[in-house]
Amino acid sequence: MRAVGQAARQASRRMAAASTAAKNQALLSLARRLREAGPALASANARDLKAAAAAGLDGPMLDRLKLSPEVIETVAQGCEQIAAMPDPVGEISGLKRRPSGISVGQMRVPLGVFGMIYESRPNVTIEAASLAIKSGNACILRGGSEAIHSNLALAELVAAALREAGLPPEGVQLIASTDRTAVGLLITAPEHVDVIIPRGGKGLIERISAESKVPVIKHLDGNCHCYVDAEVDFDLALTVVMNAKTQKYSPCNATESLLVHAESASDFLPHIGALLAEKGVEMRGCSRSLALLGPIPGAVIKPATEADWSEEYLAPILSIKVVDSLDEAIEHINRYGSHHTDAILTSNHGHAMRFLREVDSASVMVNASTRFADGFEYGLGAEIGISTDKLHARGPVGLEGLSSLKWVVLGQGEVRR
Amino acid sequence: MRAVGQAARQASRRMAAASTAAKNQALLSLARRLREAGPALASANARDLKAAAAAGLDGPMLDRLKLSPEVIETVAQGCEQIAAMPDPVGEISGLKRRPSGISVGQMRVPLGVFGMIYESRPNVTIEAASLAIKSGNACILRGGSEAIHSNLALAELVAAALREAGLPPEGVQLIASTDRTAVGLLITAPEHVDVIIPRGGKGLIERISAESKVPVIKHLDGNCHCYVDAEVDFDLALTVVMNAKTQKYSPCNATESLLVHAESASDFLPHIGALLAEKGVEMRGCSRSLALLGPIPGAVIKPATEADWSEEYLAPILSIKVVDSLDEAIEHINRYGSHHTDAILTSNHGHAMRFLREVDSASVMVNASTRFADGFEYGLGAEIGISTDKLHARGPVGLEGLSSLKWVVLGQGEVRR
Repeated sequence: MRAVGQAARQASRRMAAASTAAKNQALLSLARRLREAGPALASANARDLKAAAAAGLDGPMLDRLKLSPEVIETVAQGCEQIAAMPDPVGEISGLKRRPSGISVGQMRVPLGVFGMIYESRPNVTIEAASLAIKSGNACILRGGSEAIHSNLALAELVAAALREAGLPPEGVQLIASTDRTAVGLLITAPEHVDVIIPRGGKGLIERISAESKVPVIKHLDGNCHCYVDAEVDFDLALTVVMNAKTQKYSPCNATESLLVHAESASDFLPHIGALLAEKGVEMRGCSRSLALLGPIPGAVIKPATEADWSEEYLAPILSIKVVDSLDEAIEHINRYGSHHTDAILTSNHGHAMRFLREVDSASVMVNASTRFADGFEYGLGAEIGISTDKLHARGPVGLEGLSSLKWVVLGQGEVRR
Repeated sequence: MRAVGQAARQASRRMAAASTAAKNQALLSLARRLREAGPALASANARDLKAAAAAGLDGPMLDRLKLSPEVIETVAQGCEQIAAMPDPVGEISGLKRRPSGISVGQMRVPLGVFGMIYESRPNVTIEAASLAIKSGNACILRGGSEAIHSNLALAELVAAALREAGLPPEGVQLIASTDRTAVGLLITAPEHVDVIIPRGGKGLIERISAESKVPVIKHLDGNCHCYVDAEVDFDLALTVVMNAKTQKYSPCNATESLLVHAESASDFLPHIGALLAEKGVEMRGCSRSLALLGPIPGAVIKPATEADWSEEYLAPILSIKVVDSLDEAIEHINRYGSHHTDAILTSNHGHAMRFLREVDSASVMVNASTRFADGFEYGLGAEIGISTDKLHARGPVGLEGLSSLKWVVLGQGEVRR
């Protein structure tokens, strides 16, 4: 691990200084190699799938592990998309002349070395590698042991692509050992690693955050809200809330809690209740919403407990509360939410602006589904993860989140008086 | 401390939502109150000075503790300058339409609550309070016990100014207890505090960083370099290097190490050696620089040890090394420096650009004194501190460093497919 760390630190200097052309060449070479390597990748992946099936992993886990031709084509296209994006490194912004005569601005630079710890999906290996290459960072990747053969095969393609472009293959290193102590070494080596990005279950992320001596960009809960205001287009609100809750239940940006203004509740709740019941979504309501929802044949509707307001279900369950004002809605979201993504459905401009400003979440939305909180949807090309932290990067983290700004001073011999 | 933390968290919502007019009113009221409170402040400060003298504190410590009329006028003007600056909060940037129909941008928002732990200088109380007010953050201040009476008197003025502007006085709270356990509670309460900014000796900062459960914006060493290139205006280089080293010895942005390209060394070193000797600066050189410096009557010139290259002297001592290339200079700075502030003296544009890009420091400079690395000199109005971290903020931290960007999505009922 020490050798890996030192090699990464050394490679990071060359990655940071690499030309845009070389970085794009590596990305396009990687895309080509991914497409050419179909059979080799399939056989490496088959070993992982066989071992996983033998270990009794369930269907969804096997699905995530699978490197199908479609998954490979998607990640290859991802590399091409990132190659087509502007290079974030070296951009100087805000250069201004100061009374002393010096000009002061800021330059966007890579963070240096990031360590990524993730589970199952081997496509994350390519997503992380391609973001590292374009952002001029070196990275150390630690995938799940269940995907080790797939990841090793993918890492070989990355190293070959880097070499082809004249970049150091140590710019992207995969930890070949599946030993757990490697993670411990990775997160306690600030001399080799500048930031750790864990992706996986909440338990993994909490453990890494607690033990890491290196800053962590992390994603914890996604307890997302939709708030239906007093002034609102009911059809629009129905469409958006249904999409936010039911388009997919497992993503972190799916809505878990619905707040409805008292003036809208008597019309809105019976309508949405019927639609949710059709989709088999269980409703857990406050007493006022229960009275308005009424019993719906075949639907599970029950009283919400205090714990429900903080819950991230990731399942066909929705908590529902009637509120008396925009203030109450904002207060509820800031208190019980997880500062991830929250949306207001309203036709009142002032309310929309207050919600945007006062809800303290990484993504705040007006009249759009919380499911849009995603690096691709935001135009970042790809995301290395989603941050629920407040420092550095909030929300989807792409090329910019893997960089920071340093100060640049241009003088003609000025001195301080 | 729990009550202080809860009050800060609650006040932070109102500070974040405060209008620019109210925040500026509070700042101008604070400036007025500072000027009016001269006698009251002087008598509170006299108690601290008396106790400090009795405790045997030395001259420079007493100087830093003193709230002279000049110091008070300076901090009052600082409040007015911050009032005159644009409000960073609520600015939406980069709003772009996406193929899905939604518009995505970023809004600058306060961090929430910052905790500041600092020593001696009571003027820091006002600097921190004024930056908190303008940036829409709440803050909890923990000054040194030696300045407690001065700080309490200043904090009362801040509370009165906040009240006058209709803002919560709990927006800026000073911990009245000088008990050390208060610091321990402050840095382990992520539910109440979003970021800790320690200012003081390296020991204090390392201790806080190690024990904090809250992210820390920190400043460690300032081992700053000047590199004199092969192509350079000698007079310009002499002027800038002398300023960077000798204008003041104690600041973190003073130069501690001089690198000279071999082609410049034989002309440059004898000249600067004579100037440094005149100022009584001790020189610690590599063998090649010692040969070129030669003995200078009355000057202390000795061989540098390996430890010298990493040393932050904060004293009239300079380490000197001859290098054979720009590459060697960059490598030396990245290896031994503290990523604080480094300058190149050159007339070669390509070398200047490479130095800016490849030296991994918070501030990189061309033909200007490292002493310029400062919030006021950079036009930030004031600085809450200087960061040597790589995530979030690098270098001088002002209003922007006390804020972060959240994502804003504006839709017309769009849903995810």
